[in-house]
Amino acid sequence: MADRNTDNSTAQGSNAMWGGRFADGPSAIMREINASIPFDKALWRQDIAGSRAHAAMLAAQGILTAEDAKAIDEGLQAIAAEYEREGVPEDWDLEDIHMTVESRLTQLIGPVAGRLHTARSRNDQVATDFKLWVREAIGQIDTGLAAVQAALVTRAEQHADDIMPGFTHLQTAQPVTLGHHLMAYYEMLRRDRMRFAAAAERLDECPLGAAALAGTGFDLDREATAQALGFARPTANSLDTVSDRDFAMDYLHAASLVSIHLSRLAEEIIIWASQPFGFVRLPDSLSTGSSIMPQKKNPDAAELVRGHAGRIIGAATALSITMKGLPLAYAKDMQDDKPPVFEAHGLLTLSLAACEGMIAGADFDTARMLSLAGSGHSTATDLADWLVREAGVPFREAHHITGAAVARADAKGCALAELTADDLAAIDARVTPEALSHLSLEGSVASRQSYGGTAPDQVRRQVKAARKALGLDT
Amino acid sequence: MADRNTDNSTAQGSNAMWGGRFADGPSAIMREINASIPFDKALWRQDIAGSRAHAAMLAAQGILTAEDAKAIDEGLQAIAAEYEREGVPEDWDLEDIHMTVESRLTQLIGPVAGRLHTARSRNDQVATDFKLWVREAIGQIDTGLAAVQAALVTRAEQHADDIMPGFTHLQTAQPVTLGHHLMAYYEMLRRDRMRFAAAAERLDECPLGAAALAGTGFDLDREATAQALGFARPTANSLDTVSDRDFAMDYLHAASLVSIHLSRLAEEIIIWASQPFGFVRLPDSLSTGSSIMPQKKNPDAAELVRGHAGRIIGAATALSITMKGLPLAYAKDMQDDKPPVFEAHGLLTLSLAACEGMIAGADFDTARMLSLAGSGHSTATDLADWLVREAGVPFREAHHITGAAVARADAKGCALAELTADDLAAIDARVTPEALSHLSLEGSVASRQSYGGTAPDQVRRQVKAARKALGLDT
Amino acid sequence: MADRNTDNSTAQGSNAMWGGRFADGPSAIMREINASIPFDKALWRQDIAGSRAHAAMLAAQGILTAEDAKAIDEGLQAIAAEYEREGVPEDWDLEDIHMTVESRLTQLIGPVAGRLHTARSRNDQVATDFKLWVREAIGQIDTGLAAVQAALVTRAEQHADDIMPGFTHLQTAQPVTLGHHLMAYYEMLRRDRMRFAAAAERLDECPLGAAALAGTGFDLDREATAQALGFARPTANSLDTVSDRDFAMDYLHAASLVSIHLSRLAEEIIIWASQPFGFVRLPDSLSTGSSIMPQKKNPDAAELVRGHAGRIIGAATALSITMKGLPLAYAKDMQDDKPPVFEAHGLLTLSLAACEGMIAGADFDTARMLSLAGSGHSTATDLADWLVREAGVPFREAHHITGAAVARADAKGCALAELTADDLAAIDARVTPEALSHLSLEGSVASRQSYGGTAPDQVRRQVKAARKALGLDT
Amino acid sequence: MADRNTDNSTAQGSNAMWGGRFADGPSAIMREINASIPFDKALWRQDIAGSRAHAAMLAAQGILTAEDAKAIDEGLQAIAAEYEREGVPEDWDLEDIHMTVESRLTQLIGPVAGRLHTARSRNDQVATDFKLWVREAIGQIDTGLAAVQAALVTRAEQHADDIMPGFTHLQTAQPVTLGHHLMAYYEMLRRDRMRFAAAAERLDECPLGAAALAGTGFDLDREATAQALGFARPTANSLDTVSDRDFAMDYLHAASLVSIHLSRLAEEIIIWASQPFGFVRLPDSLSTGSSIMPQKKNPDAAELVRGHAGRIIGAATALSITMKGLPLAYAKDMQDDKPPVFEAHGLLTLSLAACEGMIAGADFDTARMLSLAGSGHSTATDLADWLVREAGVPFREAHHITGAAVARADAKGCALAELTADDLAAIDARVTPEALSHLSLEGSVASRQSYGGTAPDQVRRQVKAARKALGLDT
Repeated sequence: MADRNTDNSTAQGSNAMWGGRFADGPSAIMREINASIPFDKALWRQDIAGSRAHAAMLAAQGILTAEDAKAIDEGLQAIAAEYEREGVPEDWDLEDIHMTVESRLTQLIGPVAGRLHTARSRNDQVATDFKLWVREAIGQIDTGLAAVQAALVTRAEQHADDIMPGFTHLQTAQPVTLGHHLMAYYEMLRRDRMRFAAAAERLDECPLGAAALAGTGFDLDREATAQALGFARPTANSLDTVSDRDFAMDYLHAASLVSIHLSRLAEEIIIWASQPFGFVRLPDSLSTGSSIMPQKKNPDAAELVRGHAGRIIGAATALSITMKGLPLAYAKDMQDDKPPVFEAHGLLTLSLAACEGMIAGADFDTARMLSLAGSGHSTATDLADWLVREAGVPFREAHHITGAAVARADAKGCALAELTADDLAAIDARVTPEALSHLSLEGSVASRQSYGGTAPDQVRRQVKAARKALGLDT
Repeated sequence: MADRNTDNSTAQGSNAMWGGRFADGPSAIMREINASIPFDKALWRQDIAGSRAHAAMLAAQGILTAEDAKAIDEGLQAIAAEYEREGVPEDWDLEDIHMTVESRLTQLIGPVAGRLHTARSRNDQVATDFKLWVREAIGQIDTGLAAVQAALVTRAEQHADDIMPGFTHLQTAQPVTLGHHLMAYYEMLRRDRMRFAAAAERLDECPLGAAALAGTGFDLDREATAQALGFARPTANSLDTVSDRDFAMDYLHAASLVSIHLSRLAEEIIIWASQPFGFVRLPDSLSTGSSIMPQKKNPDAAELVRGHAGRIIGAATALSITMKGLPLAYAKDMQDDKPPVFEAHGLLTLSLAACEGMIAGADFDTARMLSLAGSGHSTATDLADWLVREAGVPFREAHHITGAAVARADAKGCALAELTADDLAAIDARVTPEALSHLSLEGSVASRQSYGGTAPDQVRRQVKAARKALGLDT
Repeated sequence: MADRNTDNSTAQGSNAMWGGRFADGPSAIMREINASIPFDKALWRQDIAGSRAHAAMLAAQGILTAEDAKAIDEGLQAIAAEYEREGVPEDWDLEDIHMTVESRLTQLIGPVAGRLHTARSRNDQVATDFKLWVREAIGQIDTGLAAVQAALVTRAEQHADDIMPGFTHLQTAQPVTLGHHLMAYYEMLRRDRMRFAAAAERLDECPLGAAALAGTGFDLDREATAQALGFARPTANSLDTVSDRDFAMDYLHAASLVSIHLSRLAEEIIIWASQPFGFVRLPDSLSTGSSIMPQKKNPDAAELVRGHAGRIIGAATALSITMKGLPLAYAKDMQDDKPPVFEAHGLLTLSLAACEGMIAGADFDTARMLSLAGSGHSTATDLADWLVREAGVPFREAHHITGAAVARADAKGCALAELTADDLAAIDARVTPEALSHLSLEGSVASRQSYGGTAPDQVRRQVKAARKALGLDT
Repeated sequence: MADRNTDNSTAQGSNAMWGGRFADGPSAIMREINASIPFDKALWRQDIAGSRAHAAMLAAQGILTAEDAKAIDEGLQAIAAEYEREGVPEDWDLEDIHMTVESRLTQLIGPVAGRLHTARSRNDQVATDFKLWVREAIGQIDTGLAAVQAALVTRAEQHADDIMPGFTHLQTAQPVTLGHHLMAYYEMLRRDRMRFAAAAERLDECPLGAAALAGTGFDLDREATAQALGFARPTANSLDTVSDRDFAMDYLHAASLVSIHLSRLAEEIIIWASQPFGFVRLPDSLSTGSSIMPQKKNPDAAELVRGHAGRIIGAATALSITMKGLPLAYAKDMQDDKPPVFEAHGLLTLSLAACEGMIAGADFDTARMLSLAGSGHSTATDLADWLVREAGVPFREAHHITGAAVARADAKGCALAELTADDLAAIDARVTPEALSHLSLEGSVASRQSYGGTAPDQVRRQVKAARKALGLDT
C-alpha cells in the first residue's frame, strides 16, 4: 500500500463508466483512496467466471440474444487468456477489477459489452467474486491442513514409544510419548478443518442477481447462475446479499484459530530448539544464520509462523471493526474487506507450508528427551495413584503423602525412587519400598491406557484412526 | 474485578489442598492474582454435574465402593441445594470452584471426599465444566436469536407492502419495502444460528478422563461419563484436551458476528429515530431521557447494543491473544478464558433481548418513509432498465442516458417523472414520455420479482419460508 | 502479499552472506516466508543514511581507514542515486534491504564493502532504519493533521454564526453553531498532534552500536552516530535496544486515535449527506457514482475513511499481539513489525488528505440546518434555565416542569413557543408566556457564553486561538 | 456482569428523575442494559468531589445562595462518609452514580438538592468523574512501575558480573550479564512511565461546565472548577468535551504496552524456571502446586501476568471499536468506556505487584547460567572481531572464516576454543591459536564496553543512572 502513495503522478481523467452524472473527474486523492484495482485484481478469474455465468443465463432467459451472448463470452475468454499471460493491468481510473474487465471487453467487442451489466450491479458482482475466491481459499487451506496432519501422523507413528517430559506450566509434569504430543496438534487441525468446512457451508449461496440491493425487474434465473458457479442455491434476500461479509469474517476467524494452533507448535519448536532443551534440530533449509554471529542457527521459520499469528488475528479484528455498525445495504467501507483476507491467506498458506516442512524435517533428539523425562519427579502421580489403588488411601491423602515424599527427596537431592525404606517409613507407613518400583518412566507411560492417554498402544490407536480419516491407508 | 483490588485485608493462610509441598502459604498478591473463584463460581452447576458423573463411573468401574460413591453423590446433591439457596461462598484461599466444592464436601462427608479426585485433575475438570457452560450458553443464544427472528418476521409480514427508501452508502438508491429490509436481518441471524450450531458440534467431546495431561492408569470408562454429561463422545487425545480452548474462542467468534449484526440494526434504529429521518419511534420503555434536556427521548437501548459490539469483539480478541503461542499442555494463562466469555455472554444476552423489544415495539412511520422513498430520483434505475427492455439500448448506454436525465431534473429542480417531452427529446430520442409513466414507487417495487427481491410477493415468500423454519406455523 | 505466493518459480540458491555455516541453501518456502525485501525495501533511504553515519564514525574512531571509508561512502551514495532512479531490486535470496544494499556495495567496491558491517548487526541496523522511518512518518502525519486543522478553522470561521441542531444520541438536543461543531474536531486533532509529538520524544534514542544484543568490543562513538542521524542520544541498554518496538506501537496507537477521530467526522458527513438530513453536499471530486443507479452521488471518500479506521486499529492490534510474550532479545517475529506500520501509514495519509478535501470543499446547506435546528423542542433547556434564573425554581423541578410543557406541546402537535397561556397555567403557575419569548434559536445560541460554549463569540475566540497556534495569523 | 443477568427479579418502577416525559417506566430489560451503577459506583469519590467543586463555584458566582451551597456541601460530605463506611448502594432504577448521589442528597437535604444540577449535565459530569479517576489510576500505575524498576535495579546491581547466555531467537548468541538483562526491562518501564506522564498531560483539562454539549447561559467560572479539581485549565470546546474519551484510550494504550513488557518478562521467567533451563526458582509464595501432581511447583503468577496481557490489549481494542464512527456529541455507547478501563487497571495493578514480587524474590541459579553461557559457541563473534582487529580481515570475510571454524568444531563435537592449530590452519591461515585464547566468557563480556553494552562497568553505569533517576540514592 505504501507504494501507492508515492505514485500520484498519473494524470487525472474522468471515468466514462459513471456516465454524465459528474461534471468533473475524481481528483487525485479520490483516485487513490477509491481505487481497489491494486488488490482486487486478484479476483480476475472469479470476475470473469461470474460474468460468463451471468451472460449465459441472460441468454437462456431471452434477455440477451444468442449472438450478443456469444460475443460477450468469447470476449471474456480472450481477456482471461490475456490476463493469464500478461497479468491484469492496473489503471486506477478504472477503479476496480469489474470496470477493468468491462472496459477491456468494450475495447474488444464494442458497445455490445454494455449489455453484460444488465440486471446486475457491482454490489452483487463483487459479493459473488469474493465468495468464489474465499471458497477456493478455504479449499487451499484445507489441503494445507491435511498435509500438516499427514506429517504429524507420520512422525507420531515413528515416535509412538519415545518418552519425553510432558509439561504443564512448562514444568515437567508426567512422562508422555513424543507421538502423543504430536497427535495433540493433529486434533487441533482436525477441528480447524471442521471449522472451515462449516464456513464453506454457510457461504454456499450465490449473490448474483441481487443487483444493487433490491433485486431486479428482469426475469432472471438465479438458480441457474448459482448452479453454474457451483453454489447450492441463490441467496434469499437481496438487501442482505449485498450487505453481507460474514463469509469473509468466517474465513478470518477460522484462519485465526489455525494460526493460534500453529503459533503454539512454533513456540514449542523454538523452546525445544534452544540449547538448554536441545530436543530438536530443525533442517538447515528452514533455519537462518546471523549477520554477526557465525555460529547461529535460528529457527526463523518457527518464529515467523508465531509472529504471523499476530497479523492474522489483527486482520480478523480489522474486518470485524470495519463491519460493525454499518447501515444497510452496501457501503464503501466494505471495500476494506479484501486486504485483510488476502493478507491473512498469504500468511497462513506460508505458515502451513513452513510447519509441514518443520515437522517432516525435524530431527528429534529422543535420547535427550528421555534423559530429561525423569526430572522434576515426573512419576510422583504414579506413586499417589499406587497408594490409592494398592493401599486404599483416598486420593487427596495420597497426594499429600506423595508431596511429603517429594519434599524429602528434594531435601536429600535424590530422585523419588532413590528414597530409602527409612525415608518412606518416616513419611507414612503405607508407602512401602515396593511402591517405588512402580515409578519407572516406561511403566508410567505404559500404564496410561485410558482412552486418549499417552500409552504407546493408545497413541497407535489414535494414529490408526487418523491415517484412516486422512485416507492414508488404502 | 476492580472491587477485588480494594479488598486486600483477608488474612493469609495456607491452602491445605496443596499438601505438604509448600512451606509457606501464598502471599496476599498471589491469593489475589491466582483466585478464580470470583468468576468461576458461575460454573458450580457444571462442576457438581461433572463430579457426580465421574463418581458414578468410578463406582461402576469398581474404583470407588458403592458406599463411598453414594456418600459422595449425596454430599454433592446437598451442596447443590445449598448453593441454589444461598449462593456460592467466595473464599480466595480455596482458589477456584473445584476446590470450593471439594472442601465443602470434605466438611460434609469427611475424608471419603478425598476419593472423588481419583483419576482426574483440575485440568480435565475445568475443561469439562467450562464446555458444559458454553454448551448451555449456546443454547440460550440460539433461543434469543430465534426470538429476534420471530419478531422480525412478524413485523416484516405487517410491512411487506410498505415502501421506504432503500439505501446504499446511506444515499437513497431504490425503493424497497420495509418488510424486505427487516428480512435482511432475519438472514443474518439465520447464519448466526448455523454458526453456533456448528460450534456446538465441534465442542461435543467430553474432556473428563484426560486427567492432568497424560490420561490415567485407572481403568476408566470415558464413554460412560461422556454419555452421562450429554456429549457425543470422549476427546481423542488427552494432551490436546487440557490445552484446548477452541470451544471458548468459537463461542466468542460467533458472538462477535451476532453483535456485529445487531450493531448494524442498532445503527439503523438510531439514524431512523433521528428527527431528520423520523422513520421510527421507539417504545418509551426502551428509551431514556436527559438529565438536562427535558424534551429528549434517546435510543439508549440501541446505542448500548451498538456499543456492546465493541466489547464483545474485544473479548474475542482478548482470548485469541491469550491463547496465542502457549506451549502444551495446560498453562495458567488459560484461566483468563472465562472472564471474556462470561462478559460477552452477558452483553449478548441483553443485546438480543433489547433488539427483540425494539423490533416488536417499534412504531414505524410508514407515511414518512413513503414520502422520502422518492427522493434522490430513486427510480432512475427503472428508467435505465426500461431503455434496455423496450428500446434495446445496451445497459451502459441506458445508464448514461438516464444520468443525463437526472442531471436535467436536478438542474430544473424537479423529479425525474416531471421532465417534459422536450427535456427528454434533448437528452435522447429513445426516452419517450411513455417511459416516465413507469417510474412510480409502487411499480418499481412490484417489478422486482427476482428471487430474493423486494417485490411484496417475494417478501411474503421469504416470510412464509421463515415462519416455517421457525416453527411458527403449525 | 497474495502476489508473493503465486511466484514460487525463482530458482533456489544459497545465500553467500551467511557464510559457511549452512550446507544447503534455504528452501523455496524459507525464501518466501523469510524474505522481507518485498516490504522493507521501503527503508532504503534510512538504511543508506544509517550506514553512512556508521562508516563515518568508524573512520573517525580509527576502525576504518579514511580510504576505505571514502570508498564505502561513495559506493553508498551511488546506490542511493541508483535506487532513486530505478527503484530497489527485489531479490529474495538477499532477504532484506540490508543485505540488498551490502550486496550491491560489494559489487561496486569489492571486498572492502565487507568492512562496513564491523561493530554492528542487522539487529541494531534494522532498529535504526525503522526508527528513522517512523520518525519521518510522524512528521508527515503532523503536517497532514495541521492541514486538516487549518481547513476546519477556516470553515469554522465562515460558519461561526450558522445555527444547526446539536445532537446527543443523534437526537436534536440544543441548537449549536456549525463553527462550534467543526472546532470540536480541531480539538481532537490538537490532542493527536500532542500524542505524536510525545511519541517522537520517546523514540529519540539511536539504536546504532547495540550490535547483536550485547554491544561490541570495538571502540565506538555512539554519541556521534546518534547526532549524525538526528537523535537526541544513544539508547541506554543494548539488549533492550534490539528487542524494542515500542516506537512502532506508539505510532500505531497514535494513528488509531487519529483514525477514530476521522471516522467520527466521516460518519457525520455520511449522515449529513443523506437525503433526509441534507446538511451537506460533497464536492464531485470526492464522490462517486453507481454502476447501476445513474442518479447516485456517494460519499465514498468518507466511507473509506471510516472503513480504514478498522484496518488501522487492526494493525495496532496485530503488532501488539506479535510482540506479546517474546523473550529477549531479538526474535524473528519482530520482522512482522513493518507491514502493519506501513499499511496504517498509507491508509492514514490518504484519510487525512481526503478529510482535508472534504472539509475544504463541503457545501453546507445552512438554511436546511437552521430549519431543522428547532425540531425536537431543542430550546427546552433554555426554558428550564429560565425557570431557575427568573423564578428561582430548583433545576430538577424546572426540568420536570419543562418536561410537562414538552409533553403538552407534543400532544397538541405544536412547538414549545406556541403553547398558550392556558397551556402554561395548567402546567405550573411559574411558567409565564414571557418565558416563551426566550426560546428563539438565536437567543439560545447567543446565551451560551460559558468558556468553550457555542455562542458565536466563544467560537470566534476558539478560532482565533487556533489560528494563532497554527501560525495562520502573522 | 454475568451476575447481573441472573437477577431479573427486581420490581419495575418509574424513574422520578426523568420528570414527566415518560408515561411508563423503563422495562426490566432497559433497567438492566441501561444501568451503569454496577460499575460506575467506583467513581463515587470523584463524583462527590466534582459536585462539591461545582457547588462552590456556583455560590461564588452568585448562582447558588451561600446557604444552599452550604447545605449541599454538607450533604455531599455526609454521603461521602456514608459510602466510605457502608459502600455505595446499587439501585438500578437510579441508573448511575450521579443519580444515586443526587437522590441520596435529596433524601438528606430536600428539594434544594435539585439546585446542584444547575448549569451542568450528566455529560460533563461523567467526563469529569472519569477523568479524575483515570488521572488517579495513572498515578497508581506510575508508583507500581517505579517499584518494579527499583526491584530490577537492585537485582541488576547484585548480578552485574554474573554471566549468562544472551539469546536471540532463543538461541545462545553471546554471553551477557544477568544485570544487563534485567536492566533491559528497566528501560522498557522507563518508556512506560514517560508514556503515562504524556497521557496525564493530555488529560489535564477540566470538562466541567461543558454542560450537555453546548455550554450554558449561566455565568460560570470554569477556571475555578478546573483549579479546584487540580486541572491545568478547562477544556476549550464543549462539544468535544462531552464526546471525548481519548484519555481513556490513552490509558489503555499505555497499559497495553506495560502489559506487553511484563508479558515478555513473564515468558522469560516461565522458560527460565523450566527444568531444562533451571535458571531461576520462584519464591513459594508466588508459585502454586497441582491438584494431581504433588511434585509440581508452577510459575502461576508469571503465567497470569502473561495471560493478562491478552485481556488488557483486548480492553484497549474494545474501547477503540466502541468509539469508532460515533457521531458527536455524547452517545450512550460511550457508557461502555468504563468496564474496559476498570478491568485493565485491576489486572495491570496485580501484574505489577506480581512482577515486583517475582523479581525481588527470584532465586537465580547463576552457576547454572554460567555453565550454559558457553554453549552454542557463544563467543564466535569475538573470534570474528579478533580477525577484523588483529588480522585486518574485512568483517564479512571474518564472519565467513569463523563460520567454518564453528562447522569444524561441531563436526568434532568440541568447543571453538578446543580446535587445534591444524584445524585452524585448515580453515584460514590468519586464524592463529593465539586467537582462541580470546574466547573466554569473562573476556568476551568485559570487552563489550560500548555505551549500553554488557560489560559489568557499563551495567554499573546504567544502574547508577537508574538509581539516581529513581531517587534511590540520596
